[in-house]
Amino acid sequence: MKYYGGIDLGGTKIYSIVIDEKGNVLSRAKIKTGGKKDFKEVLNKIFDCFNEAVEKSSVNLNDILSIGMAVPSAVDITRGLLKHAPNLDWENVEIAKYFIEKYQKPFYLDNDVNMGTFGEYCFSKVINYQSIYGIFVGTGIGGGYIVNGEIVHGKNFTAGEFGHMIIELGGQKCNCGNKGCLEAIAGKVGIIHYLKRQVDKKGKSTELDNISPDWRTTIGSSALKKAYNRKDKLVTKAIHRSANAIGIAAANLVNVIGVEAMILGGGVIEELGDVYLPIIRKTMAECSIADGAAGVEVVPSHLGDDAVALGAAWFTSLEEKQSYLLK
Amino acid sequence: MKYYGGIDLGGTKIYSIVIDEKGNVLSRAKIKTGGKKDFKEVLNKIFDCFNEAVEKSSVNLNDILSIGMAVPSAVDITRGLLKHAPNLDWENVEIAKYFIEKYQKPFYLDNDVNMGTFGEYCFSKVINYQSIYGIFVGTGIGGGYIVNGEIVHGKNFTAGEFGHMIIELGGQKCNCGNKGCLEAIAGKVGIIHYLKRQVDKKGKSTELDNISPDWRTTIGSSALKKAYNRKDKLVTKAIHRSANAIGIAAANLVNVIGVEAMILGGGVIEELGDVYLPIIRKTMAECSIADGAAGVEVVPSHLGDDAVALGAAWFTSLEEKQSYLLK
Repeated sequence: MKYYGGIDLGGTKIYSIVIDEKGNVLSRAKIKTGGKKDFKEVLNKIFDCFNEAVEKSSVNLNDILSIGMAVPSAVDITRGLLKHAPNLDWENVEIAKYFIEKYQKPFYLDNDVNMGTFGEYCFSKVINYQSIYGIFVGTGIGGGYIVNGEIVHGKNFTAGEFGHMIIELGGQKCNCGNKGCLEAIAGKVGIIHYLKRQVDKKGKSTELDNISPDWRTTIGSSALKKAYNRKDKLVTKAIHRSANAIGIAAANLVNVIGVEAMILGGGVIEELGDVYLPIIRKTMAECSIADGAAGVEVVPSHLGDDAVALGAAWFTSLEEKQSYLLK
Repeated sequence: MKYYGGIDLGGTKIYSIVIDEKGNVLSRAKIKTGGKKDFKEVLNKIFDCFNEAVEKSSVNLNDILSIGMAVPSAVDITRGLLKHAPNLDWENVEIAKYFIEKYQKPFYLDNDVNMGTFGEYCFSKVINYQSIYGIFVGTGIGGGYIVNGEIVHGKNFTAGEFGHMIIELGGQKCNCGNKGCLEAIAGKVGIIHYLKRQVDKKGKSTELDNISPDWRTTIGSSALKKAYNRKDKLVTKAIHRSANAIGIAAANLVNVIGVEAMILGGGVIEELGDVYLPIIRKTMAECSIADGAAGVEVVPSHLGDDAVALGAAWFTSLEEKQSYLLK
């Protein structure tokens, strides 16, 4: 049996796994970074977290053939270079160098949503489709584009920025500086903004005041679900509005690049997929030209927290991806 | 020397060429269909037009190895089936069958904008790019997507519908039935609509009343250019608005699929490319995430009227495309 390591570096936590050659997850380890951003400090925590996963797996470190890692940043995959991670305040960090020095194993670094999409794709029923797009809805909206089994990185390693598709000229300002990005309308950041506007300017009310009093600054997907299940009118409207916008952006994908399948994931979809997916499918069909969405699959993700780290570890295990690994 | 035929079927005219194996256009023939839509009648005109091109080329029909044809419709390329051409009122016509019966030569049928993009791509400086998008701006806006030299057709042969990317939620109604499509804002149809609104509702005036009195129903790209050159304020604003919208849609391409190059063509660009391209480049750069548009080429088309028929003929000449030809 062969073994592989996967690491998912987030803005506030590190998640590591060890898998076997069949993709079984043998162990998981999780460490909070407590918002620490000093690179060397966090790097040591990453090593600790990965070592903990190895220990838990009972696999000898020597038997782990390669390590894949995902970061919340555009990545120059040819150099294992994190380009710019606003959540961590890091810029141009050659992460691969440190890992190869420490573990002396082939290493691969990519963007977290790319790796999550790859993981979901590899262990999903849409693996035989030529062209698929992963869409992950949380506070923001991320994406990943896979063609013929290859992750499409784009000219400057920024492909997959699905959340920054502009769908409303002159619309709501987005954190990226542009206006009318999908994320600013349909991500949790957009949902919160819509709710605030309705409450503050139109005098509407919402159960969120009870369910999640801090909803104006941050809101859990489970709180949204709770309010939706209680038939909170405002939250229901906000959710439908968000799903509809994602459906329009999905139709844009169909019209412009003709994807065959989409994988929907992220916290919001995990909680509210039953609400989102039917709306997304319907809007996508309505807004696609010449019945272009007929037979286009929209499937929910199913790997949960493992997706990103599993995608990264699994990527390094595949024979056809060996040329991407850095040594 | 080997020879190939190419046919570009439009809504009102047929354009045929004969090329040699180097892509030189040896002859051209053009026949107006006079808006006739009866299939058999038009089919005979297509044969006439192609025969005329062959005659003019002085190449013996027997020496023409294959024929490529482009139509204003989604095409099932595996069957040579025109799916739905609103301009011609045709639906589900197996054009390949008639051509193969008539000429007994390998035949290929594809969408006109796909073939135009392919032609421009094959004879352009961006031929070595992995991922390119063709954008053609006329009355409407069409597109073509090429990855690794392959035309991307999408799940239902509708990929490339760039003009129907929705960029303005709840915006101007488009001929396709949706709202806020790029075409409805930035195509000539969108420009006319904008001008009418400004003149009728805001009392603005335009030189177009003199240059092109029919501008409310139809407008030539050259008339737009003339008004622009005369510094007509309203037309200038309409052109800049159109170019800006295309720039935003181009940024969406960069963000979502990371294209490396775009080829801009069509009547509007042929006349006003010097105005459009700088605005498109600037807006695309501003609205792309993490400097994603850096180094992304935006080049003008240069094959003019030949592009579509040349793309179709050239496609059939390539060794790596022989498996697509129908016999």
